[in-house]
Amino acid sequence: MSRFFSPKHAALDAYVPGEQPRDRKYIKLNTNESPFPPHPAVAEAVAMEAGQLQLYSDPTMKALTEATAATFGVAPEQVLMVNGSDEALNFAFWAFCDESHPIAYPAISYGFYSVFCALHHIPAKEIPLREDFSIDYRDYCGIGCAVVIANPNAPTGLALPLSRIEEIVKSNPDHPVIIDEAYVDFGAESAVSLLPRYPNLIVIGTFSKSRSLAGARLGFAIASPEIIRNLNTIKYSTNPYNVNRMTAAAGIATLAHNDVAMANCRTIAATRERVKTALRALGFTVTDSKANFLFAAHATLGGEELYKQLRSRGILIRHFSTPAIANYNRITVGTDDEMDTLIAAIRDILASQRKED
Amino acid sequence: MSRFFSPKHAALDAYVPGEQPRDRKYIKLNTNESPFPPHPAVAEAVAMEAGQLQLYSDPTMKALTEATAATFGVAPEQVLMVNGSDEALNFAFWAFCDESHPIAYPAISYGFYSVFCALHHIPAKEIPLREDFSIDYRDYCGIGCAVVIANPNAPTGLALPLSRIEEIVKSNPDHPVIIDEAYVDFGAESAVSLLPRYPNLIVIGTFSKSRSLAGARLGFAIASPEIIRNLNTIKYSTNPYNVNRMTAAAGIATLAHNDVAMANCRTIAATRERVKTALRALGFTVTDSKANFLFAAHATLGGEELYKQLRSRGILIRHFSTPAIANYNRITVGTDDEMDTLIAAIRDILASQRKED
Repeated sequence: MSRFFSPKHAALDAYVPGEQPRDRKYIKLNTNESPFPPHPAVAEAVAMEAGQLQLYSDPTMKALTEATAATFGVAPEQVLMVNGSDEALNFAFWAFCDESHPIAYPAISYGFYSVFCALHHIPAKEIPLREDFSIDYRDYCGIGCAVVIANPNAPTGLALPLSRIEEIVKSNPDHPVIIDEAYVDFGAESAVSLLPRYPNLIVIGTFSKSRSLAGARLGFAIASPEIIRNLNTIKYSTNPYNVNRMTAAAGIATLAHNDVAMANCRTIAATRERVKTALRALGFTVTDSKANFLFAAHATLGGEELYKQLRSRGILIRHFSTPAIANYNRITVGTDDEMDTLIAAIRDILASQRKED
Repeated sequence: MSRFFSPKHAALDAYVPGEQPRDRKYIKLNTNESPFPPHPAVAEAVAMEAGQLQLYSDPTMKALTEATAATFGVAPEQVLMVNGSDEALNFAFWAFCDESHPIAYPAISYGFYSVFCALHHIPAKEIPLREDFSIDYRDYCGIGCAVVIANPNAPTGLALPLSRIEEIVKSNPDHPVIIDEAYVDFGAESAVSLLPRYPNLIVIGTFSKSRSLAGARLGFAIASPEIIRNLNTIKYSTNPYNVNRMTAAAGIATLAHNDVAMANCRTIAATRERVKTALRALGFTVTDSKANFLFAAHATLGGEELYKQLRSRGILIRHFSTPAIANYNRITVGTDDEMDTLIAAIRDILASQRKED
């Protein structure tokens, strides 16, 4: 740490992204990327922009905002486009929480929520999950502070039904409720339909997973026009040109073929269900994930051990050292071929383990 | 404002980017974009990425960081790549200043400095320029707080010689000194050469102007490894994947042809000098700009009036309502043809004015 670093950051423990090793070719099942490339229209749209990059992007993101609004059936004034949904989450924490405005979220969830709290000095109310990793929605009803819930939750993959989300939003009318829908398209219900009734609701989404644009960095927030105006105040006070021309074009092209992206999600969900069954047959406890990943622990093989063994076989999955979930791993759902390779590798690892016993 | 907005943002007055009207085709001389398109290698590099956007970008930006380090003759540990240099400025203000660590800067300079101060509740020491709009470097020597200076300054275009910048950096060893070099390649001296001697120096640069990538959003900070680590802590606490794959590829391709970009800068500087002479001949006071824009006021035609008259003729320049410079306009240096059109239009406006008198 340099001696110039503000003492207010002394306790800051930054987010650690999933590893991106380059020592060999891996089957990457560790960062919840889509196994499907973007729609071919994306490359065409990007090529149109590549020759005019000397010109700034439109800071209002008018065309992309309108396309997103049309896709979700809301008004353009209800939409903010951002440089990946982490930026929308950061803006929302920053706009609506502070030293005296805490936020509640599940103790096991997206690791960035606690980082944003540390960064903005927001008191965090971390609420334990049930023993089966599910969220008890009643813990958040009338809680009297801001709430952020990933639905489906990460890394568990478990989703709350829309009626439960509505109870949380409805019972906290004086506080913003952020629903982080990074994984919603793989089998959960979006809260966007609740927006007309709840001006305290903020839905945050991303093009990274279900729309195959993780590498383009594109996310969005959908909320009341007043909330979007506040988020825009933060945006125009930090980085007005936050989304570049190529990503904007990629986003518009992707939304023009949204049906293809949603069909890809259904394929991924089908693969997920197949792999879940296979893992359970191999002795794994696997949550009923509605996301593009599985969350699994084996009865006799430790979580870190499985992670290491698979890594040495060229397969990356995500291991978290958090004690409560240290026996688990988060496994991104890849192609059917990739998942068959994974299952074969796990079978092999388990067989070696039995031989050693 | 929604009733959920944190009261800490009550006084926030966000930055207003230069207008991007779409009602007709304009000659855009209002946002300091390059008149040169990016190098053709950029389109090729971007096309390579467009088909694999389902994969996250490298959060460490290893290849691009190394290319930037090589270009500037520093170590990769001294470089942070960002989503436009506004992000680097924001990170630096956020990392090194706070409620009890003020920052000094010229009262007339890049409008975002005061926005960052308001956002982060940093006391601002705004130091007046001399009457000729120049910065008196002695005002900043041993000032006892952080300093940010745009060199060349905006919107005046005036540059301090490197020896003066060194005096400021050297005389404030216990405080970070940020030199914002957005426009340095058009005729000023970069402070990067001072880095080996001054661990308190932070140089911030951009690919937007001299490298024709405004629409790709790419900037950088160069400083000591300790300072870069602090900036990275902010980055990994807000948006680890801040630069997308396409922009990273565009940046690498641009640096591979840095000589072409620097030759474009010399062309722009030559055009600037020619237009400066022409404007002076037409009765304008024009600063001795070292940037890719001119800062000019006419003896008899008001700044806002000129802006409006040019706008109605399809030429956009940037007018600031700040009283001290309300008679001036900032005019981006475009192509020779564009500047000839500008000069003809101004001649025409002045002729009509004389007729009316």
